Amino acid sequence: MVPIICIVGASNSGKTTHLEKLIPELRRRGYRIGTLKHDVHGFEMDQEGKDTWRHRKAGAQTIGIASPMTLASIRETVEEMPLELIAGRYFWEEDILLTEGYKRSHYPKIEIFRSVIESKPICGAHDNLLAVVTDDAVQVDVPVYGFGDVAGLADLIESRFLKDRKKPYLTVVLDGKQLPMKDFVKDFVVGGIVGMISNLRGWAKPRKIDIQIRLEDD
Amino acid sequence: MVPIICIVGASNSGKTTHLEKLIPELRRRGYRIGTLKHDVHGFEMDQEGKDTWRHRKAGAQTIGIASPMTLASIRETVEEMPLELIAGRYFWEEDILLTEGYKRSHYPKIEIFRSVIESKPICGAHDNLLAVVTDDAVQVDVPVYGFGDVAGLADLIESRFLKDRKKPYLTVVLDGKQLPMKDFVKDFVVGGIVGMISNLRGWAKPRKIDIQIRLEDD
Repeated sequence: MVPIICIVGASNSGKTTHLEKLIPELRRRGYRIGTLKHDVHGFEMDQEGKDTWRHRKAGAQTIGIASPMTLASIRETVEEMPLELIAGRYFWEEDILLTEGYKRSHYPKIEIFRSVIESKPICGAHDNLLAVVTDDAVQVDVPVYGFGDVAGLADLIESRFLKDRKKPYLTVVLDGKQLPMKDFVKDFVVGGIVGMISNLRGWAKPRKIDIQIRLEDD
Repeated sequence: MVPIICIVGASNSGKTTHLEKLIPELRRRGYRIGTLKHDVHGFEMDQEGKDTWRHRKAGAQTIGIASPMTLASIRETVEEMPLELIAGRYFWEEDILLTEGYKRSHYPKIEIFRSVIESKPICGAHDNLLAVVTDDAVQVDVPVYGFGDVAGLADLIESRFLKDRKKPYLTVVLDGKQLPMKDFVKDFVVGGIVGMISNLRGWAKPRKIDIQIRLEDD
């Protein structure tokens, strides 16, 4: 699965503004970037009166619109989709997923901190903090980058998550939950699957294989 | 994969308006509905100045926003995504996908026809036409429904695509192209995969299994 880093911080600390600097810096280095904003209050993405908006208003649970260069979709969910499932379903071609928010997830975090907004960082010792971006004095055990040092932060992300990373070559998700597997088990499963289907007509040395299985109820 | 029906017709024939009647009719019958509009010209979904809009403008190839009840995403694509791939990736929980447009696809089609707009239906004998919705006289070999007979059209869709359908229990997609497989091969592959992973810790009689494999270049 795509590696995930959560950009967190108090309201108005400047998360979006810093992402606007970090995204082009990483993209210049050749990576495909995905972002995901966590919005606890709900949002309106589509525009009133458009066809997609009318489909949705009529009761479609998932709507999409596809043009030659862009694909957009809006899904109504019964409960909040886990971050891991969103990452696997929607960010299958990106090299990294930067979230804005998701402070409570267990993924590594970069906190944007301004002492004029909050007296101390919102992330504590158990929040899997990777770095802090601030121009103020802070007492933390992780690297600190000034707001102007976007290259330094990108270096950290690149060295920890993007360079030489072993590609996550097998992911198995059961009813939305990832099945943990040791590397030798992955080798065994991938070998078994490729062995079964590589003799079928239509096989042509693919780079990506996606398999969906729906098991009947007993 | 979710069954797909394409709602087609000339511009201004009333595709969206008829979908606004058909969607609630099918939803009342207990089905989850997905819709996908084909827009050959390009569209703007997000709103200027929003955080997601800023992420995208900064260069993120895929952006998303998640709230407890809704998930929206916009993906920049290098070439147009095949309808089949969109259906598999984005409409995994829907019972049926109704597209607006996609006349050139090979999926079954329902044409919305008004003689004041076009002299004859745009679908010909080789367009996999399922039905025509019109109040005008037309000469076609498929069922014809008046604009007021939404229930009749829903009956056709239900009987052909939704009732008693054998669930498509295995889909294998290689680099975005579905691998055709006969049923006994599917049984063999599903049996093999379940056999390999059902003894692993974490297995708990799932209903859905999603597997992603990324093979390294040679």
